Amino acid sequence: LHASDIQKQLDRRRPGQSAISTRRSEKDRVILYSGLERDTTLGTPIMLLVHNEDHRPGDYAQMLSVPRPSHADYTYQAKFGIRAQSGGGRASARETIGRVCGGAVAEKFLSGTFGTEIIAWVSSVGDIQTPMPDIDTLSREIVDTTTTRCPDSSTAQRMEQLIARTREEQDSIGGCVMCVCRNVPPGLGEPVFDKLEALLAHAMLSLPATKAFEIGSGFTATTMKGSHHNDMFVKKGDGLGTVTNNSGGVLGGISNGEPVVFRVGFKPPATIGKAQKTADFTGKETTQEARGRHDPCVVNRAVPIVESMAATVLADCALRQQRRRQPAPPIQQQP
Amino acid sequence: LHASDIQKQLDRRRPGQSAISTRRSEKDRVILYSGLERDTTLGTPIMLLVHNEDHRPGDYAQMLSVPRPSHADYTYQAKFGIRAQSGGGRASARETIGRVCGGAVAEKFLSGTFGTEIIAWVSSVGDIQTPMPDIDTLSREIVDTTTTRCPDSSTAQRMEQLIARTREEQDSIGGCVMCVCRNVPPGLGEPVFDKLEALLAHAMLSLPATKAFEIGSGFTATTMKGSHHNDMFVKKGDGLGTVTNNSGGVLGGISNGEPVVFRVGFKPPATIGKAQKTADFTGKETTQEARGRHDPCVVNRAVPIVESMAATVLADCALRQQRRRQPAPPIQQQP
Amino acid sequence: LHASDIQKQLDRRRPGQSAISTRRSEKDRVILYSGLERDTTLGTPIMLLVHNEDHRPGDYAQMLSVPRPSHADYTYQAKFGIRAQSGGGRASARETIGRVCGGAVAEKFLSGTFGTEIIAWVSSVGDIQTPMPDIDTLSREIVDTTTTRCPDSSTAQRMEQLIARTREEQDSIGGCVMCVCRNVPPGLGEPVFDKLEALLAHAMLSLPATKAFEIGSGFTATTMKGSHHNDMFVKKGDGLGTVTNNSGGVLGGISNGEPVVFRVGFKPPATIGKAQKTADFTGKETTQEARGRHDPCVVNRAVPIVESMAATVLADCALRQQRRRQPAPPIQQQP
Amino acid sequence: LHASDIQKQLDRRRPGQSAISTRRSEKDRVILYSGLERDTTLGTPIMLLVHNEDHRPGDYAQMLSVPRPSHADYTYQAKFGIRAQSGGGRASARETIGRVCGGAVAEKFLSGTFGTEIIAWVSSVGDIQTPMPDIDTLSREIVDTTTTRCPDSSTAQRMEQLIARTREEQDSIGGCVMCVCRNVPPGLGEPVFDKLEALLAHAMLSLPATKAFEIGSGFTATTMKGSHHNDMFVKKGDGLGTVTNNSGGVLGGISNGEPVVFRVGFKPPATIGKAQKTADFTGKETTQEARGRHDPCVVNRAVPIVESMAATVLADCALRQQRRRQPAPPIQQQP
Repeated sequence: LHASDIQKQLDRRRPGQSAISTRRSEKDRVILYSGLERDTTLGTPIMLLVHNEDHRPGDYAQMLSVPRPSHADYTYQAKFGIRAQSGGGRASARETIGRVCGGAVAEKFLSGTFGTEIIAWVSSVGDIQTPMPDIDTLSREIVDTTTTRCPDSSTAQRMEQLIARTREEQDSIGGCVMCVCRNVPPGLGEPVFDKLEALLAHAMLSLPATKAFEIGSGFTATTMKGSHHNDMFVKKGDGLGTVTNNSGGVLGGISNGEPVVFRVGFKPPATIGKAQKTADFTGKETTQEARGRHDPCVVNRAVPIVESMAATVLADCALRQQRRRQPAPPIQQQP
Repeated sequence: LHASDIQKQLDRRRPGQSAISTRRSEKDRVILYSGLERDTTLGTPIMLLVHNEDHRPGDYAQMLSVPRPSHADYTYQAKFGIRAQSGGGRASARETIGRVCGGAVAEKFLSGTFGTEIIAWVSSVGDIQTPMPDIDTLSREIVDTTTTRCPDSSTAQRMEQLIARTREEQDSIGGCVMCVCRNVPPGLGEPVFDKLEALLAHAMLSLPATKAFEIGSGFTATTMKGSHHNDMFVKKGDGLGTVTNNSGGVLGGISNGEPVVFRVGFKPPATIGKAQKTADFTGKETTQEARGRHDPCVVNRAVPIVESMAATVLADCALRQQRRRQPAPPIQQQP
Repeated sequence: LHASDIQKQLDRRRPGQSAISTRRSEKDRVILYSGLERDTTLGTPIMLLVHNEDHRPGDYAQMLSVPRPSHADYTYQAKFGIRAQSGGGRASARETIGRVCGGAVAEKFLSGTFGTEIIAWVSSVGDIQTPMPDIDTLSREIVDTTTTRCPDSSTAQRMEQLIARTREEQDSIGGCVMCVCRNVPPGLGEPVFDKLEALLAHAMLSLPATKAFEIGSGFTATTMKGSHHNDMFVKKGDGLGTVTNNSGGVLGGISNGEPVVFRVGFKPPATIGKAQKTADFTGKETTQEARGRHDPCVVNRAVPIVESMAATVLADCALRQQRRRQPAPPIQQQP
Repeated sequence: LHASDIQKQLDRRRPGQSAISTRRSEKDRVILYSGLERDTTLGTPIMLLVHNEDHRPGDYAQMLSVPRPSHADYTYQAKFGIRAQSGGGRASARETIGRVCGGAVAEKFLSGTFGTEIIAWVSSVGDIQTPMPDIDTLSREIVDTTTTRCPDSSTAQRMEQLIARTREEQDSIGGCVMCVCRNVPPGLGEPVFDKLEALLAHAMLSLPATKAFEIGSGFTATTMKGSHHNDMFVKKGDGLGTVTNNSGGVLGGISNGEPVVFRVGFKPPATIGKAQKTADFTGKETTQEARGRHDPCVVNRAVPIVESMAATVLADCALRQQRRRQPAPPIQQQP
């Protein structure tokens, strides 16, 4: 494990990468304090630190009296009975830095042990849908060819225009991220409460601004008949694979060796420059216009975060399963 | 707490309630062994037992050599390296009995402490959608007026016809369950990993046959602009409420006092009577026709199960929050 | 795994085995409900049930107004704000049945995987000390040759006389249990909080009536110099062993392959027939004479319980370590 | 909460305070990164950092080939399959800095909420015993009047002489720390596995170099009769107290409002300058003389560490109990 393994993903998460995201220029340098010697983990805890070098609490002054609509100011007050002077406190999406760091370590373990590959991409912004890419060959390099992280360049262009327009309107827009995990060994996930899809849903819905999760056929499955939805078994390599993959790589909560495929829905960011008629903490009507630096759309920066949480979940499951029995190697896909 | 509090929900989950579900006649009587005296909990663990009185392992004989498509037979083999003689083992949906029992206890605590009310209903079967009911007045009695647990009787009729037709075809069909939780106190849910929606997603995706989850505006949010999606604050009772509820009752992972509203997608049951071309455990092509008693559609029986898991999650969160500070009473809705 | 593996230890724990223990005639038959087929575990949870067939709540009537001195009646009231009608509730030592059941399963895993052997014995009753047995050859058969479970028969006789005399006086007496775990693989226990000795101490002090725990040289170590206390390394088998074993089989919280040896101190049982001047729940002075059936000394029945908790701790640690790397085989002792 | 609350205890733990301990001059300055604003906790995680400013890995070079007797070098190798270049790695007692930091935060909560006071002292060094102090009036100021932290000055002098002599011999010596926790509210600790004494034993045996733990009468209880050992109840304040305190403040695993009193045994430090005949990692006989800076006796520095772990355990239990019901105020002691 090397700092660069982590830095690579942190750089993909960092704001200020392009015109479409926030202009804060955080550097987000990771420092490795402990748990490694000569790039080898010691088996003991790994301490990582990323300093916040561009902190401007002044931007958040108004929020002390007026809770931002659809943001956490009001509920933090309800939960903790106290208001942090600094912007957003624990609710700031800066906390995802830690997830990306941890996810990069998890990924290193997964790729080294099972050859697992995890690739997320922007599958929609507003009403604009990305055509389904070839999930067997998709790579982070392909995804990163556009600043929106949409692997189809003409769609990406339309998305960028929509985001630019939205920024001019001082508004924000939602979108979806899809993710494929290849070479996941069969046997990951627990039979009842900690099903693999349950852990993935937990992880994804724990990300800021997420509202929805589906695995495999997702909500589309609800309109289908069993005879069309069922994935028939067929010999693949030394084990079984399936002809279709409506299951999204999980059967009964346990990975079956096929690619794990899921989709996450992000709402439009709550903090917008546009004036909003709302109420202050005392209930008095007021108007709020957010200052500070905010993303009109978060999905392109969410791509490495989704990957990181997927890696964390899969690594946890793999470690649990290794306690039980060595997971079988994943089904080798035919070229 | 009385056994009848639990039995009521068990009876709603039980198969054999109507023509549309499986014909097994399980009685599912709950026995309370410990943790109570004179209907009062002692603060010590509550032991409940529900015997399985209609167990027919013979029905599951073929599965020992041929894994059912889109079922857990194959992945259990991969995970545990062993095959249970009895049908489905841990993967049987009979395990949801325990969830319903626990949920009924959680609900008793929530309703007694906060007046919380949890009501789920069938919101779609196949392509047939239930019109959105009035979630402020919806009750379990209203939901139970139809065997499909669709609160709109003419829609329910069409659903029953679809399910009957599907049964004749020896096939199965998917559907959705929606759920509203009223009088949830503000402050439930943790700031980062254990956000309320993350815990609900975990709980719902841990149920058999689920593929998708959304809270509040869900995937629809991904197509919206922030200025339309944001829920503006307004004075309600002693605190703040919101004019709209796209958030589905959570802000930053923490309940805001508005109704918690979410939707769960169920795939068509995997076990069907129709012949399926698949492979046996060795990879040899074969044809499978399931015997035994199976539901063509599970959503109406899933209704009390979804309610139970919601109650369990909310009770856990309320207990965590009580350790911190007494949650404020929920916002009183205007009549 | 077979029910008899569990029943054997339950029978050693059972009251009414001899003149020296309580006269309740509990049968303590274990029923295996799930998790096994043809004596093989399925990897899924194992459910065991032991019915209480000789329950006499009447014996406990006085305790409702007068808390037994040095018993849990008063603190349960403080903790739960409620008093159970039945004797002792959760504080009854009957709860150790569950520990013995779980321990027997853990032991089966340990002995099958590593050849681990766990043998406890009564090392003192009151002032009477058992001479140190040969811990390399001690067996449960040797321990069970006397009803006190003291492996030295002349000491055992004196102990029995002391216990009989104590019973006549309607009084009770304390004692110690020692335990040796042979063939524990090196590498068990975690570096910081969950050190092996910490987990053993936790497990033993969680048993009813325990007041003290020491591992290896224990309190004697506190009077020693490092140059005498240190256990020098020497080649044993393929790895290293130590010449002495003051460490009691753990170094830095991690097993080193030498026998794990520890001692647990049990206080005299609190419930005695002798009249005691105490106060009732309101603080009014009163006199209490316990009715019901109570042990004058618990250490001989504690022997299988101590073994069970040791097995549980070691199995947990072994599973944690298997997730990390396969533990090395334990040092083979020279005959 | 203020950094000085934490620094005070860190300074008591710091080496180089006096002639009797190690000569490393670590400064151990705590930096508070997050979780507070204007000395008030926000309810969110508190991040503390203490840099290691006097790190000399060279001192530990020999250990790479020769495991120190009675130290963790050998078992870390067995556990992790790797050797850290830096001294001791996770097994260094420097890790107790984190415990002291966390304990200081816990103590602030306990003293502010319940008036809890936690005072530990050196109760023996080698064979020299400290006479039992008055535990109702003992204070940290009294304990700190001697460098050995023995509250009896003439005993302290003899201890210092013994330690100085031991240092000259390049040897080390063991000792005991006792601890009293006053104003612990009744109701802390769980009925079965997480009994208060079990959690304290776990915490204390997780400290480096500990071999033994006893609560209240401890091993002495094993020689007593119930009629002498039982603590009779008597009215105290609004509740009940006990005449004696053989229980050490816990009944059935739950605090009863009386002072919690326990004792911890520390072995002589393993690392000594004196030559030791031992084996290297390959099993070859060799002689080891430790270089580097090491304490001949650790008990005086262990005093704040024991206090910190006690505070951590009590705070955890108090938070668990607050979830259940507000703990009653502790019994007011008569002056």
